[in-house]
Amino acid sequence: MSRFAPLQNDVFLRALQRESTPYTPIWLMRQAGRYLPEYNATRKRAGSFLNLCKNPELACEVTLQPLERFPLDAAILFSDILTVPDAMGLGLYFAEGEGPKFERPVRDEAAVRQLAVPDIGTDLRYVTDAVTTIREALGGRVPLIGFSGSPWTLACYMVEGGGSDDFRTVKTMLYKRPDLMHAILDVTTKAVTQYLNAQIEAGAQTVMIFDSWGGALADGAFQKFSLAYTKRVLAGLKLEAEHRPGERVRVPSIVFTKGGGLWLEEISGAGCDAVGVDWTVNLANARARVGERVALQGNLDPNALFAEPAQIQGEVAKILESFGLPENGVGHVFNLGHGISQYTPPDSVSVLVEAVHEYSRRQRKA
Amino acid sequence: MSRFAPLQNDVFLRALQRESTPYTPIWLMRQAGRYLPEYNATRKRAGSFLNLCKNPELACEVTLQPLERFPLDAAILFSDILTVPDAMGLGLYFAEGEGPKFERPVRDEAAVRQLAVPDIGTDLRYVTDAVTTIREALGGRVPLIGFSGSPWTLACYMVEGGGSDDFRTVKTMLYKRPDLMHAILDVTTKAVTQYLNAQIEAGAQTVMIFDSWGGALADGAFQKFSLAYTKRVLAGLKLEAEHRPGERVRVPSIVFTKGGGLWLEEISGAGCDAVGVDWTVNLANARARVGERVALQGNLDPNALFAEPAQIQGEVAKILESFGLPENGVGHVFNLGHGISQYTPPDSVSVLVEAVHEYSRRQRKA
Repeated sequence: MSRFAPLQNDVFLRALQRESTPYTPIWLMRQAGRYLPEYNATRKRAGSFLNLCKNPELACEVTLQPLERFPLDAAILFSDILTVPDAMGLGLYFAEGEGPKFERPVRDEAAVRQLAVPDIGTDLRYVTDAVTTIREALGGRVPLIGFSGSPWTLACYMVEGGGSDDFRTVKTMLYKRPDLMHAILDVTTKAVTQYLNAQIEAGAQTVMIFDSWGGALADGAFQKFSLAYTKRVLAGLKLEAEHRPGERVRVPSIVFTKGGGLWLEEISGAGCDAVGVDWTVNLANARARVGERVALQGNLDPNALFAEPAQIQGEVAKILESFGLPENGVGHVFNLGHGISQYTPPDSVSVLVEAVHEYSRRQRKA
Repeated sequence: MSRFAPLQNDVFLRALQRESTPYTPIWLMRQAGRYLPEYNATRKRAGSFLNLCKNPELACEVTLQPLERFPLDAAILFSDILTVPDAMGLGLYFAEGEGPKFERPVRDEAAVRQLAVPDIGTDLRYVTDAVTTIREALGGRVPLIGFSGSPWTLACYMVEGGGSDDFRTVKTMLYKRPDLMHAILDVTTKAVTQYLNAQIEAGAQTVMIFDSWGGALADGAFQKFSLAYTKRVLAGLKLEAEHRPGERVRVPSIVFTKGGGLWLEEISGAGCDAVGVDWTVNLANARARVGERVALQGNLDPNALFAEPAQIQGEVAKILESFGLPENGVGHVFNLGHGISQYTPPDSVSVLVEAVHEYSRRQRKA
């Protein structure tokens, strides 16, 4: 694996591990996306979103696009959250103007019994190839984040057959047939674990688990049907890599449960290095609650990027002040509290990134 | 006002005021709704949802329907959350298969400057007439709840012109033109205050403020743009009524912020008697956080009603045990954490109501 160039900017990795950093690093969820005209051009060339995900060269191209524009401190693999269930044979497709759908949702006992862990090395080879391609193309500029949906979040899509307002189908299964729910989660957990390990093997320097729908669960159900399985994934990860000969490095992990602010104590004890928080969370309170167990990642409302530059700078200052400056500002990665909106003016992102870097440098000097 | 019969079941009112009760009272958000065939029949007769809301006799009919089936401990005015902005002239309508919409959303300075508090006595007379009609028809069986959307929640609809996934339009205004946002909220707050006072005057025995979209706001913005205005409404309410000669009774108030679990301390200090909580909240933690300031209302996931009777009973027991039994079980009103689903089997509601009453009686005897 001597192909990977040495890392030039490790501020993101250091912040995740609560080491001191010269400034607060920033990256944005969905930073390679539709708000960038160059992304839309590549996507058009690809023919479809799925083609883009499944072509390592094109996935690499769009992954690097935001880094050309903005001095972001991390890159994130461009891929879809539903690659794993797709590889399980559920038939992922995107209806025009709608979200992701599955041709064969998992709704009854027979469908559940048929689920099996896919062969990551073949069925998801396009993802690990993309990871290696991107890592090489990055040339050590910033670290590369690999990711997966959490078992619960994947299960939501698998049972609902797509997005949902009320999660009626998957929650009916959860309440009525918890045995089936656990069976789905068990298979999915094994698949996600292998998938993330394969990404680490291929060159991912951080892994992030997106529990996008954990916050839809009731207290009690969240712990049993989401967090317990995220924990199992984390416990199964080989969070050390030898991406360059003789250089064993830790691969930090991040768990992001949208709407999970009430469960921060529990999530921070799940075995991850960092916890992502959405904009409803007060960072000062969050720090007090999680103590020194984990770093925090977040949490600007993406809609703040529709404001004027001075207003964006004001929101950045509020968040950085709220996190405060413990021991040289350790343990905060700036991000949005959710993916960036496709309607965001790219110039607002420039303002944001610069504001985070500048303000946090000043904080450290004060 | 001697027309109102004496109240026979005051368990709900007592629980809201943290007095001891022989069992835990229960009512359900949206209890008069599409899961009941008799509701659908009345709605069909009315011709449309809006006709149903605007006809006091029919609104009364559907309000009473769930009480005929289930021994619920409160009735709630059947009405729409958007009556106030409709009365402001925004032109409420319901597109088939879609949610509520406004013909004239409030999106620019000119539209904001035109907003005025409607004449509640005429423009919203159909609501206060419905309150009185229902109160008379109840004949004192259970108390009647009046309600309004919170200023912030109404403003979301007014600016977006309907529901929204990301609240991009209203949040753009919030971040970019906070002055306009505050101007909308100021007018809306005055209107909501007068509206709830008129409902109390007309016979409402409790008032509830639904802050359905408060949880969409970032920490900091919630306090400024939602809670501050809810507080102003509460401060302006005349929470005492003389519905029968010589008998002055307190009219308790409830605030429900969906997704507001992180802000319970602040909401419970807003001046209300009770705080509604959704299913993400752990009731034992919530009680520890709000102390003796307020009662709590909630918080079963409505999807639990798709389970089998024994499973529903199990979920009820978990919630009642989680709340615990402080001084004779004071201060808990059982409810769902959100409106009941239109797909709910009515028999599940029977199971739920009976389980809450029975289990909570047993708790008190243990």
